[in-house]
Amino acid sequence: MEGQVRGLQRLVEEDTYCIDVLTQVSATTKALQSFALTMTDDHLQSCVADAIAQGGDQAKDKLAEASQAIARMVRS
Amino acid sequence: MEGQVRGLQRLVEEDTYCIDVLTQVSATTKALQSFALTMTDDHLQSCVADAIAQGGDQAKDKLAEASQAIARMVRS
Amino acid sequence: MEGQVRGLQRLVEEDTYCIDVLTQVSATTKALQSFALTMTDDHLQSCVADAIAQGGDQAKDKLAEASQAIARMVRS
Amino acid sequence: MEGQVRGLQRLVEEDTYCIDVLTQVSATTKALQSFALTMTDDHLQSCVADAIAQGGDQAKDKLAEASQAIARMVRS
Repeated sequence: MEGQVRGLQRLVEEDTYCIDVLTQVSATTKALQSFALTMTDDHLQSCVADAIAQGGDQAKDKLAEASQAIARMVRS
Repeated sequence: MEGQVRGLQRLVEEDTYCIDVLTQVSATTKALQSFALTMTDDHLQSCVADAIAQGGDQAKDKLAEASQAIARMVRS
Repeated sequence: MEGQVRGLQRLVEEDTYCIDVLTQVSATTKALQSFALTMTDDHLQSCVADAIAQGGDQAKDKLAEASQAIARMVRS
Repeated sequence: MEGQVRGLQRLVEEDTYCIDVLTQVSATTKALQSFALTMTDDHLQSCVADAIAQGGDQAKDKLAEASQAIARMVRS
C-alpha cells in the first residue's frame, strides 16, 4: 500500500497522463479497502469477541464502536 | 427504499433526463447502504454476539460469515 | 434490477437470515452501479458531447452537471 | 493526502488501536476520492472536451477511456 501511494505521488510529480493517475488512485483505494477489511475482521475476532465473552457494558460499547467504523468504511 | 426504487423505475419509463435518473440512483444506493448497515449492526448485536457468548466453532463461523458480508458491502 | 429489488423485499418479508438479505443488498447495489455507469457513459457520449460540439456556456454547464453526477455516484 | 497516508503508516507502526487506524483509513479513502473526482472533472473539461471539439475517432476513444476510468473509480 505504501509503495502504491509513493507510486501515485511520483505519477503526479511527473505530470503523468490523467487517466493513468486515476488508474493508480483506484488501485490504491482498493488496497486501502482490503487493508481496512482485514483489520476489521481481526478487530471483531479479538477485541470485540473478547469484550462479548466478558459481557457487560464493555461488549455493547465495542459493538457500537465497530458498527460505526464499518459505516464509515462503507460510506467512504 | 421501496418507494425510491419505484420512483427510479417511473423515471426511466417516463424518459426522464439522465442526470435526474442518476440523482435518484445515487439516493437509492445510499438508502440501500443505510439499510445494510443497520442490518449488519443488528446482526452483530444479536446473532454474532449470541454465538460468541456460547463460544466454540459456531462463534468462529458467525464471525467469518459477518466479515464476508461486510467485505461484500464495502466492495459494492 | 427490478427483479433484484423485488427479491430483496420478499426476503425481508419472509424474515430471511440477515446474511442472505445482505448478500442480496450487495448484489442490488452492484446492479444499480452498473446501470448508473452505463447511463453516465451514454450521457457523456450524447448529451455532453453534443453540447461540447456546439460550444459555448451550454457545454460548460453540461460538463459541470456531469461531474456533479459522477461525484454523487462515487460518494454513494 | 500525502500527510494522511504518512499519518496512517505511523499509526500502524505505533500499534495504535484498530478503530483509530480504521478512522484514518476512511479519511484517506475519502481524500483519494476527492482527488480522483477533481482530476476527472479537469480531464473531462480539457482533454475530453478538446477531443470532442476536434471530432473524429479521437473523441470517441477519449470518451470511452474516461468512462472506463469513472467505472473503476465507482467500483473501488
